[in-house]
Amino acid sequence: MNGLIYMDYAATTPLDPRVKEAMEPFLSDAFGNPNSIHFYGRQARKAVDESREMIAHILGCRPGEMIFTSGGTESDNLALRGVAGARKHRGRHIVSSTIEHHAVLHTLEALREEGFEVTLVPVDEDGLVDPEQVADAVREDTILVSIMHANNEIGTIQPIAEIAKLVKEKKTDVLVHTDAVQTVGHLPVRVDQLNVDLLSLSAHKFYGPKGVGALYVRQGTRLVPQLTGGGQEKNRRSGTENVAGIVGMAHALRLSTQEMEQENRRLAALRDRLIDGILGQVPDSRLNGHRTQRLAHNANFSFLGVEGEALLLQLDLHGICASSGSACTSGSLDPSHVLLALGLSREWAIGSLRLTLGRSNDDQQVDQVVKIVPQIVQRLRELTPEAVRLGFS
Amino acid sequence: MNGLIYMDYAATTPLDPRVKEAMEPFLSDAFGNPNSIHFYGRQARKAVDESREMIAHILGCRPGEMIFTSGGTESDNLALRGVAGARKHRGRHIVSSTIEHHAVLHTLEALREEGFEVTLVPVDEDGLVDPEQVADAVREDTILVSIMHANNEIGTIQPIAEIAKLVKEKKTDVLVHTDAVQTVGHLPVRVDQLNVDLLSLSAHKFYGPKGVGALYVRQGTRLVPQLTGGGQEKNRRSGTENVAGIVGMAHALRLSTQEMEQENRRLAALRDRLIDGILGQVPDSRLNGHRTQRLAHNANFSFLGVEGEALLLQLDLHGICASSGSACTSGSLDPSHVLLALGLSREWAIGSLRLTLGRSNDDQQVDQVVKIVPQIVQRLRELTPEAVRLGFS
Repeated sequence: MNGLIYMDYAATTPLDPRVKEAMEPFLSDAFGNPNSIHFYGRQARKAVDESREMIAHILGCRPGEMIFTSGGTESDNLALRGVAGARKHRGRHIVSSTIEHHAVLHTLEALREEGFEVTLVPVDEDGLVDPEQVADAVREDTILVSIMHANNEIGTIQPIAEIAKLVKEKKTDVLVHTDAVQTVGHLPVRVDQLNVDLLSLSAHKFYGPKGVGALYVRQGTRLVPQLTGGGQEKNRRSGTENVAGIVGMAHALRLSTQEMEQENRRLAALRDRLIDGILGQVPDSRLNGHRTQRLAHNANFSFLGVEGEALLLQLDLHGICASSGSACTSGSLDPSHVLLALGLSREWAIGSLRLTLGRSNDDQQVDQVVKIVPQIVQRLRELTPEAVRLGFS
Repeated sequence: MNGLIYMDYAATTPLDPRVKEAMEPFLSDAFGNPNSIHFYGRQARKAVDESREMIAHILGCRPGEMIFTSGGTESDNLALRGVAGARKHRGRHIVSSTIEHHAVLHTLEALREEGFEVTLVPVDEDGLVDPEQVADAVREDTILVSIMHANNEIGTIQPIAEIAKLVKEKKTDVLVHTDAVQTVGHLPVRVDQLNVDLLSLSAHKFYGPKGVGALYVRQGTRLVPQLTGGGQEKNRRSGTENVAGIVGMAHALRLSTQEMEQENRRLAALRDRLIDGILGQVPDSRLNGHRTQRLAHNANFSFLGVEGEALLLQLDLHGICASSGSACTSGSLDPSHVLLALGLSREWAIGSLRLTLGRSNDDQQVDQVVKIVPQIVQRLRELTPEAVRLGFS
């Protein structure tokens, strides 16, 4: 890792070398198109089938219930647009939350323009969705509820099983989707236990390759395909299968799952050391997200009177790779919609720092970050006009 | 190639080892998310930008006019659905041809269900679209014309520049899309010379990786995004960029383009040896597609009284990897829609064999195929009841 400290694992993870090794044959001799019936085609088909079985086994579903996609965004789009298209004659109301990933929120926005109605349930100050509130939002014409499993910015884990239970008690035939992009490979996600009908995942969030993901769709669930063509994935997602990517995703999930318990213990300890260290040393700082009901590798802070982007640039100069929120919207100067949804004021929300831990991090790196962040925050507060205005000079 | 003869290059190509090498860093240390602003993010962003410039340079467009996708199917879907969505208030008529890839035909089918009207222009017995007929099909309410550059089954190359010229003379503001999945990397495709507004390509058709493609969209062309989320690709295609795949696609295109002229000369000679050999030795056989205006690597035959699938299985037993038509629909027993569109009877259409050549093929392999195919065809004709019925026993 060339001396840099990478604490942006929620944005993306490096490819596990063991996963890369599993992909190797499919980037060289085993290059067939799984739709060909000859030797190379069958070899590729076998790899895709075995990967599907491996993933389905881990997630507690049937192989035929997994649709391979190009990543989390496509999975979310397929879930939302696919269900909306298939069920628009039953109703046009969708329930979601204010802190969803943009792959969900912007897709709901697009569906709104097509005549769907969307209710966004708010969250409490820790970013928790209240299952009762979700169920209360379900109406006669509700066709779908989509609540993320864990938030990508603040790491808060939602009570999805409870949400699904209450929603279905309220109205049996409402479908429940969860964007589990941040939890698959990090928590023991099982669709049977969560009782969801659709679940999105993305390989590059758990040491797999970029450009590949999947959508679990409960058997019998109608879905309008969003990519039409050769009829792959049982006509639900056309396009030649990304064989190497799919194989990589399966192996990455297998390895992450095997090592999850031990790694999460290690990461949670690092995370707490990071949280305690930073909150203890930076005045006017706060932790965003739930203190305990959060991903083992996520820490998200706000520093009053600091501009998040400036903080990131300074950290980068010190060899620390971090994020202000979601990688997808970095470069934007708007405060995070997630932090605003927690009730943070603009002043607090713009001063955010997300540190997400992973396999390369250790105590030493955490201590280094705990040493440097307070120094940079102090310097920025001394320098920036806003800080002056707010009285931190 | 373990003794097998691979002649299914139109279905997919092996990854060029030089391309794999170019991808390597992005499958290991250079793993960043291009949307992160730290060192790893900037490193990945630079790789994506440079790839975009490389591809744009080769295709004769600006880097900002390339949208990276997950492959040819997504590119076709984005072109058709994106334009249809953006222009539906101007008109709802689309012109295409009867021999398009299913990624176009099935997408047009879906658009039909949404209220669009589609005119499919027929082709002549060689599979050629008549530019005049396309222009004639353009009406006041036509918003888009989509004609493939070369057909994936029969290899016939369409006069796209002429089609675009006539279409735009008929109606200035009609957009022209071409599915160039079979030609990019195989012919000197330049969007400025073709004068198209949208063009689809797929990396795994020119020795690049599976799971990545692109859509050229002329500057100023409105397009409704089909994947919404983090706003990547200038808000036209959200989702974390498949960095390794994009880098691979650029290098594969660069290498294929450099070696194109020489390789095409070599392949055309092999192709002609194959065509002459097989037509010369198999009675009641025919070449499908135009004799000269065809891809250098494509040969497509029909053998009367033979069932294509049975032929493929026999060839596979003899170590020859081929296709009956498109890989995407193999397994289907329906005769190819392309062959039917040429005017072939069902009897001729079901007995098709597509042999598509590439880097691993040589004279010896061609001679081997020319030796084996006639034997198998003869045996099948002797064995199958249909052949008996048709009088070939």
